[in-house]
Amino acid sequence: MSKIKKIAVFTSGGDAPGMNACIRAVVRTGIHFGCEMVGIKQGYQGMIDKNFIPMNRYSVSNIMQLGGTILKTARCLEFKTEEGQQKAYNNLKEAGIDALVAIGGDGTFTGAERLSKKFDIPVICVPGTIDNDLYGTDFTLGFDTATNTVIEAIDKIRDTAESHDRLFFIEVMGRDAGCIALRAGIAGGAEAILLPEKATAIDDLITTLEDGAKNSKSSSIVIIAEGDKNGGAYNVAQKVKEKISYFDTKVTILGHLQRGGSPSSFDRILGSRMGFAAVKAILAGETRKMVGLKGNNISFTDLEESITRHDFKLEDDLMEMSTILA
Amino acid sequence: MSKIKKIAVFTSGGDAPGMNACIRAVVRTGIHFGCEMVGIKQGYQGMIDKNFIPMNRYSVSNIMQLGGTILKTARCLEFKTEEGQQKAYNNLKEAGIDALVAIGGDGTFTGAERLSKKFDIPVICVPGTIDNDLYGTDFTLGFDTATNTVIEAIDKIRDTAESHDRLFFIEVMGRDAGCIALRAGIAGGAEAILLPEKATAIDDLITTLEDGAKNSKSSSIVIIAEGDKNGGAYNVAQKVKEKISYFDTKVTILGHLQRGGSPSSFDRILGSRMGFAAVKAILAGETRKMVGLKGNNISFTDLEESITRHDFKLEDDLMEMSTILA
Amino acid sequence: MSKIKKIAVFTSGGDAPGMNACIRAVVRTGIHFGCEMVGIKQGYQGMIDKNFIPMNRYSVSNIMQLGGTILKTARCLEFKTEEGQQKAYNNLKEAGIDALVAIGGDGTFTGAERLSKKFDIPVICVPGTIDNDLYGTDFTLGFDTATNTVIEAIDKIRDTAESHDRLFFIEVMGRDAGCIALRAGIAGGAEAILLPEKATAIDDLITTLEDGAKNSKSSSIVIIAEGDKNGGAYNVAQKVKEKISYFDTKVTILGHLQRGGSPSSFDRILGSRMGFAAVKAILAGETRKMVGLKGNNISFTDLEESITRHDFKLEDDLMEMSTILA
Amino acid sequence: MSKIKKIAVFTSGGDAPGMNACIRAVVRTGIHFGCEMVGIKQGYQGMIDKNFIPMNRYSVSNIMQLGGTILKTARCLEFKTEEGQQKAYNNLKEAGIDALVAIGGDGTFTGAERLSKKFDIPVICVPGTIDNDLYGTDFTLGFDTATNTVIEAIDKIRDTAESHDRLFFIEVMGRDAGCIALRAGIAGGAEAILLPEKATAIDDLITTLEDGAKNSKSSSIVIIAEGDKNGGAYNVAQKVKEKISYFDTKVTILGHLQRGGSPSSFDRILGSRMGFAAVKAILAGETRKMVGLKGNNISFTDLEESITRHDFKLEDDLMEMSTILA
Repeated sequence: MSKIKKIAVFTSGGDAPGMNACIRAVVRTGIHFGCEMVGIKQGYQGMIDKNFIPMNRYSVSNIMQLGGTILKTARCLEFKTEEGQQKAYNNLKEAGIDALVAIGGDGTFTGAERLSKKFDIPVICVPGTIDNDLYGTDFTLGFDTATNTVIEAIDKIRDTAESHDRLFFIEVMGRDAGCIALRAGIAGGAEAILLPEKATAIDDLITTLEDGAKNSKSSSIVIIAEGDKNGGAYNVAQKVKEKISYFDTKVTILGHLQRGGSPSSFDRILGSRMGFAAVKAILAGETRKMVGLKGNNISFTDLEESITRHDFKLEDDLMEMSTILA
Repeated sequence: MSKIKKIAVFTSGGDAPGMNACIRAVVRTGIHFGCEMVGIKQGYQGMIDKNFIPMNRYSVSNIMQLGGTILKTARCLEFKTEEGQQKAYNNLKEAGIDALVAIGGDGTFTGAERLSKKFDIPVICVPGTIDNDLYGTDFTLGFDTATNTVIEAIDKIRDTAESHDRLFFIEVMGRDAGCIALRAGIAGGAEAILLPEKATAIDDLITTLEDGAKNSKSSSIVIIAEGDKNGGAYNVAQKVKEKISYFDTKVTILGHLQRGGSPSSFDRILGSRMGFAAVKAILAGETRKMVGLKGNNISFTDLEESITRHDFKLEDDLMEMSTILA
Repeated sequence: MSKIKKIAVFTSGGDAPGMNACIRAVVRTGIHFGCEMVGIKQGYQGMIDKNFIPMNRYSVSNIMQLGGTILKTARCLEFKTEEGQQKAYNNLKEAGIDALVAIGGDGTFTGAERLSKKFDIPVICVPGTIDNDLYGTDFTLGFDTATNTVIEAIDKIRDTAESHDRLFFIEVMGRDAGCIALRAGIAGGAEAILLPEKATAIDDLITTLEDGAKNSKSSSIVIIAEGDKNGGAYNVAQKVKEKISYFDTKVTILGHLQRGGSPSSFDRILGSRMGFAAVKAILAGETRKMVGLKGNNISFTDLEESITRHDFKLEDDLMEMSTILA
Repeated sequence: MSKIKKIAVFTSGGDAPGMNACIRAVVRTGIHFGCEMVGIKQGYQGMIDKNFIPMNRYSVSNIMQLGGTILKTARCLEFKTEEGQQKAYNNLKEAGIDALVAIGGDGTFTGAERLSKKFDIPVICVPGTIDNDLYGTDFTLGFDTATNTVIEAIDKIRDTAESHDRLFFIEVMGRDAGCIALRAGIAGGAEAILLPEKATAIDDLITTLEDGAKNSKSSSIVIIAEGDKNGGAYNVAQKVKEKISYFDTKVTILGHLQRGGSPSSFDRILGSRMGFAAVKAILAGETRKMVGLKGNNISFTDLEESITRHDFKLEDDLMEMSTILA
């Protein structure tokens, strides 16, 4: 029988749709298996500030449909120091917390790994970020909702696109990873997609657009990941305009609206499954693992591996399709 | 009995959700009353190019839910000349077109007024623009859908707003009129709303935001009409940041996504009523009027008045509420 | 100067999208003008149970986008008795409440009228019901959102309608009033609309549908208000099928999903304006009035008149359009 | 090099969101690899009626965001006969069609298998059905969109659910498979989920609901797959009401609105990938395979196996979670 009696859950880093579904699953699964459950507000900062709140099954009623995270997130410089980590651990111990479920991205995982290794407190991590850029899972929590948000924006813009000499540039999230740009670009029928993973010369982009115009395309939409080497949608629009001035260019910067919104069914289910699996793993004696979705099954990856490996890449068939289907 | 046998409908200027509902109503109402119906593609350009298409009741099937306009719009420099107007008129005559329904904004109306006066061809105009900046109607076609689009964006951004030191700046459409900004700002619960109609000093904005922060607001959203004197969301964000650097600022530029999207029920009904009324007015011998909605009733305004008067203004109670409710 | 120091707000009857925007406006406007504000939970039941909660400006933060009502509603048999009303009044007095803002429909107004007359406590009512069936306002709170919800459903069903021998019957809310059915029917492009206000013989409906089939309509959608004399969508579908068995009939009952959902911009603005106006009216010494929207302006109607008059009717042009445009 | 020069694509059976994305991918991929492309209207009926239309890359412009299928579907009794199949094949040959891509469900596959075996015409099938009940793929086309549609409905209904004595019964699609009910029920936070795969006694359901009421649940939502043994939502509601009359029960039948709507990003990507893979498979000499998604990768299953095997089942962890998280 597990000696784990009290489990705390927290979210950290950028928020993502589906985090609340995951918190709900963690809390209710823990209670189901006889544990006391605690929510830590504002991530690592909350550990240092003793911002602990007891959670019962009603604490998580009616939250699944909400974007964001009811536990909040925050940046925490203090936790990066030895003293901060010690303080956090002491507070956890004092509150009787035996194990942690951490929901977040790369930075969250690094903190969790450190805390767990140093003080031997079990931790299971859940990949919660809209960027889909973590090793060990096909999909991160929030990615599906974010791509849906982006394609709804593209669909609306396409409605107003009606003459061949008008170009729309839409900047989407993705500093290092082009997952959102690639999927939303294909699903939105974009003319061209600019990704951090692949340098696109402005001249090549212009050729693509002029070919489209020749083929009497009635409009052109270009999706640009914020991490694209050309420097964002405004810069790309300007550079294009300098060379082909007869195009009328329009820019949309979606910004943080991509993080919000009621989570999709996919993300609610994913968050629920991952939260459920995380608690069961803790009770089974696991630690320093990241829960993931591989195919339609829950899987686990060593936390260290998921932090250090960055050799995942954009799907080959999607890359190929992105030019063929455009 | 009316001598009007053949009526043409066209859209011009920026497209707006609900234009298709209006086209549908014009076509079906005209047919119902025994007229032949014609669609002119790409507005005034289409008159010059003889881009006329016969419309039957099936031409407008299943279009009501679509954003944009199936008849397209275009800018037309040639129509601004005497020769262009003569050519347009000759083409209309040659095609046997007895009367026109024009859907669009200020510029569209000016063209229609000129054509109608010069050549004595009856014309009824429908106010179709998301900006809600026309005299003679409480609401223009597309305005309701556009404000819904903006508040959905605000709602999503609010989801991710969680610490008091984060500021979101959202730029919305409105070069001369702050209707979208004002309504969407109130409906979205914005902290501050910057309008073309009212200069806001950056220092005053900062005071508002700092007061909000003191009152432990968990987030602040500022709506900025593109015509605001401070020069758009990026400039405002930068100016604010220069003065209060501890704020983390995020910018969203909604751009043309505000023009698109499936029209709301309000805009479909409005477009249908206006199109229906426009054709009935033509058949009753009216000309050079703009259809409008006053209260819940269709009304008519002399086209000249609707073009020249700009003394409509933002609702007083909304202006007052915008600071009290924030 | 007003002697009103403490104002309570409550919702009663069926909930409607926009009620939360109204509660927010009432609370913040009252506070702005120096009043203490109270929320009464579960309407009249809450008066009897002393379910009073003090409201400050943060009590209503971040609620505008939520459907339903944070103050809940409930049926209350006890309030229908003399004793119940006396008890409610005593509790209000004991809590120092000087005036009331009541948000709801017919039944809510009747209770408010009684309480106010009997005990001389000022009350201003806000029309909150999706049915749009109250005298003295062009639009009730929630109606716009509900019609948007219905047309989204119709749009989806139309997607799958592809052969002329398939009929879709959609039942929408409206026991006595066909406002939702009429507007959603027109905005959704329905083939036929069955309203409580107008008996439709099944044979006439069948004629309409067969004419549509002859005209090679690719699908037919029939909207049925629940109060239609033929007894709801299932009964209509069955009766139609008995006579023209070659049609494949499909039924959708939207039910309570029409009451929910994030309020539209229109309803958020309407709720805000009405709540704002209600508090100002109370402070100006008004009582037993219903706030309304006439045109684009706030207006007031004597509560008694709004309760007793039922001579509003469906818009003539909409009725006419409903057959011409179909 | 492949001898395939001309490929036809068709949809058959119930339509599903994402079919248009798949058609688009099939057509553009085929053209990219040098093939002539043909669309067959109304499935097998169209083969018999020679309802063939040549498709170029513009035939599939701007369709990805549309629900339904631009190629229509139809039932076809004649194709079930030997003569019908022979006629279909003769027409295909006459039109020079070398291979087929069939998008649909079980019935579609059976027809394709027969045609292909009998006449040696290569065929690749794509699983397009909202029910997610096909062997050989984790997800069928349209399932993701349908579950999103259902949870949006549940979210709206939850908004209006406010007293512990009110029960909402929502009937969703699924005659034989409870995939939609299970996922939407979990993602919507339903109190209870009734599935075709698992008989639920009314008494057990009542116990669950009464336990919820005891735990002061503010509302209860029950999801019922249409194939549940108790006979649909109306019957369940009535049976429950007979036993616990103090509950106020409300029924929603979502019906065909679950089939429609603009496809989600997931379904657009899935349709694009499957269509892309189907054409590549045909050109690589494959036949009688079903394209599927296993994990995040495209896979292939023998068509015969996908038709005959029905041993897929609902995910174990989802089944377990459905009671624990409720």
